[in-house]
Formats: sequence, structure tokens, C-alpha cells
Amino acid sequence: MSLSQNIVWHPSSVTREEREALLGQRGTVVWLTGLSGCGKSTIANELEKRLHDSGRATMVLDGDNVRHGLCAPPERLMTEQGEASANRFGLGFSADDRQENIRRIAAVGQLFVSAGIITVTAFVSPYRDDRRRARGLIERAGTVGDFVEVFVDTPLEVCERRDSKGLYKKARAGEIKHFTGISDPYEPPRSPEIHLPNDDSLPVEAAVDRIVSYLTSAGRLPAT
Amino acid sequence: MSLSQNIVWHPSSVTREEREALLGQRGTVVWLTGLSGCGKSTIANELEKRLHDSGRATMVLDGDNVRHGLCAPPERLMTEQGEASANRFGLGFSADDRQENIRRIAAVGQLFVSAGIITVTAFVSPYRDDRRRARGLIERAGTVGDFVEVFVDTPLEVCERRDSKGLYKKARAGEIKHFTGISDPYEPPRSPEIHLPNDDSLPVEAAVDRIVSYLTSAGRLPAT
Repeated sequence: MSLSQNIVWHPSSVTREEREALLGQRGTVVWLTGLSGCGKSTIANELEKRLHDSGRATMVLDGDNVRHGLCAPPERLMTEQGEASANRFGLGFSADDRQENIRRIAAVGQLFVSAGIITVTAFVSPYRDDRRRARGLIERAGTVGDFVEVFVDTPLEVCERRDSKGLYKKARAGEIKHFTGISDPYEPPRSPEIHLPNDDSLPVEAAVDRIVSYLTSAGRLPAT
Repeated sequence: MSLSQNIVWHPSSVTREEREALLGQRGTVVWLTGLSGCGKSTIANELEKRLHDSGRATMVLDGDNVRHGLCAPPERLMTEQGEASANRFGLGFSADDRQENIRRIAAVGQLFVSAGIITVTAFVSPYRDDRRRARGLIERAGTVGDFVEVFVDTPLEVCERRDSKGLYKKARAGEIKHFTGISDPYEPPRSPEIHLPNDDSLPVEAAVDRIVSYLTSAGRLPAT
């Protein structure tokens, strides 16, 4: 078949279902939400490790890997892309920018779902509307169940007491504006697929157990 | 280990190398570039099918799956995100918008590379600078070889004669502005990893053979 015949020839695409069959799993976004310092990254990394060790194809999306590329701030875009792009497309922390940040992450999550990957996202994502849109975008091309919302429900006092990055201290001192929980709201999920109450006593392993059990019983992972 | 101890605890992350070991391949972006109608999508789909059939974890990024989400036009963003976001973040076909379009795709390609996936992209991507930046972004976090540029070098006359989507006719009639090859330039790669001259006689299978051979000898795929 030569390229010149592609007017009448429909290329055979590999489907999502075929990719999933190869990997032995269903593409899913596990969307962790909660305050800064609530344990999202810790849970994301341990969850990925558990899944990887059992042979699953996985990815974690977090600030570390999206803020340097997909959702880079204006000053980073400036270097390579020039002023116009930096100003228009770079993402800071305004309401619009946060919304676009979550939208791009959800759009990428949807592509990873199409690739059949179990993808864990770890972002504060404080607004219900943004999370609702993320769910809509991710489940649009697929099926209900592709988006699993996990509320890491660590009380503010606990997060602030830990303050592992020193951010709460800076937020209280007014050095960081629009800090979720201090000067900006956090809107807790009303009906997350998984609710992880965390009062200092929930071991990470138990949190990961709950998520893995959920994914298994929902048919996203093969039963072991 | 409880979450509250994460001040002193470094979570164990799964690395790119571990994901690649699980999948038995190296994460790679195969970046197809060439005129509209040159055969990029046909080659992308056949290449993915060949790789998938031999057990490889793959993904294709093309206009069909990014223009509805990641790189959506303003009118689509408008519906859900509101006017401010639509105006600022939606992507049309201006020079800045095209540049940002390629940048987002490259950023996603880099995430797929981290996940260990063989990812085939099929975009005209007419500008050398944009492709150079895409290469830089994708190879930054990894190694040289993560980005494989494939020039699908079908002459304009052949593309225009096929005109499978009727776009050249519209471009000639002035109904589409900024159409690559007609009213906008195409800057051919100077040293692509793979050059596919295509004068109507190159079978798709032969094009796919060449790409698979390259990936195998470059150590991106296991030898068969």
C-alpha cells in the first residue's frame, strides 16, 4: 500500500482497549487532592511503587515534572519562547492560571488514560469546579471510572504543624499570597471515590492499601 | 511509617529507568514532520500498530487527540473555562499559537518518555526553531536519543494532488490563511535522524521498516 493511496485507505489505529489489553490494566487517573503538606506526594510515590512492583505501567504527575515543562511559569518560558508567549501562556498563581494549570494536567491525564497507564496526580487542586472539569475531560473520551478522586483529608493544623517546606510559616507571615488553607479556600470534595481521613495516625501503607483495593474491585487492575 | 513523619522521610519514587525496565524498552518520541497530506498520520498509525503487535507500549499524539483537550481552540475553552481563559490560553493558528502548540506537545512527549512509552507524534511542525525547542525539552530530562526526528519528505505537488481533506484547494482559493506550503513556509529538517523521501512510490511498510530498524539499532527497542 503506497502513501499516495491514502485517500481511500483508512489507517488501522491501535485503540485504547488494545493498549490496555497489552498492559493488563485499565487506564485510570488517581487524582489526589488536599492541602499542601497533607501527604499527597508521599502517597502518590508509595502508590506508584506498589503498583510498579506488581508489574503495572504507571506514571506520577506532580509539580516537579509539570512546572518545568507543560505548566511552566512565565520566567521559564521567557528564556526560550520570547516575551509574547511568556506573558500569554506562562502560568502563575492567579485564579485563571490555576484553572488552566489543572486543565492542562487533566488533558494530559486523559492522554495517559488513552495509553492505558495508571496515572497518579498530586496537586492541591482546591476548587470543586476545577476538579469537576478535570473529571469531565478525563472521562469524556472514555468511561465513567477513569477518574478516581482521592481526598487526602489531613486537618490544616496537622499540615501546618509539619510544614515540611516552611510554606505555612511564610504564608502566615504574608510572604506567600493566595496560600490554600491560609489566605485562599480549600473546597473539600463532597463525594470523592476515596476519602482518607488522616489525623496523624494513618500509615501510608494503609492509605495505599485502600487505593489499591478500590482500583482492584473497580476492575482497573487485575485481581491478585 | 505515618504521614506525619514525612518531614524526615524521603518517599521512594519509581524512576524512569525502572519504568523502562518493566516495559522492556526506552521511552522515545518519534517526531514526524512534513507537509499536510504527506503521510504522517498513516505512518504514525502503521508504526504504532507494528510496535504494539510486537508487544511494545505505545501512544500516538496527533491533531485528533490534542486539539480537543491540551491544545484546544478558544471556542472550545470558552464553553467550560470562561472568556478570560479562552482568550488567553486557547490556541489558534498565529505564529505564537503554533509555537505554544508545539511546546505543549513536546512537554507531553517528555512526560511520556519518562513513563517509558514509545510515542509517535504527527504534526506538520513546519518551523526549525520549534522542532529544535521540542528536541531540547524532550531530551533535557533524559538522554540524547529520546527525540527521533523523521522527515516525511513528500513533495508539495504530490501532497496537493492527493489533497485528501480538500485543504489545499481551500488554501489556493484563499479560504484558509497561513497554510503551510502554500502561504506559509515549511522549513525542512537539515539533519533528521530519518529522512523518508517519498515520491509516490514508498510503501508505508517500508517507511515503518526503516523507523523500526533505526529504533532497534539505537537500543530503544529490544532486538528481535
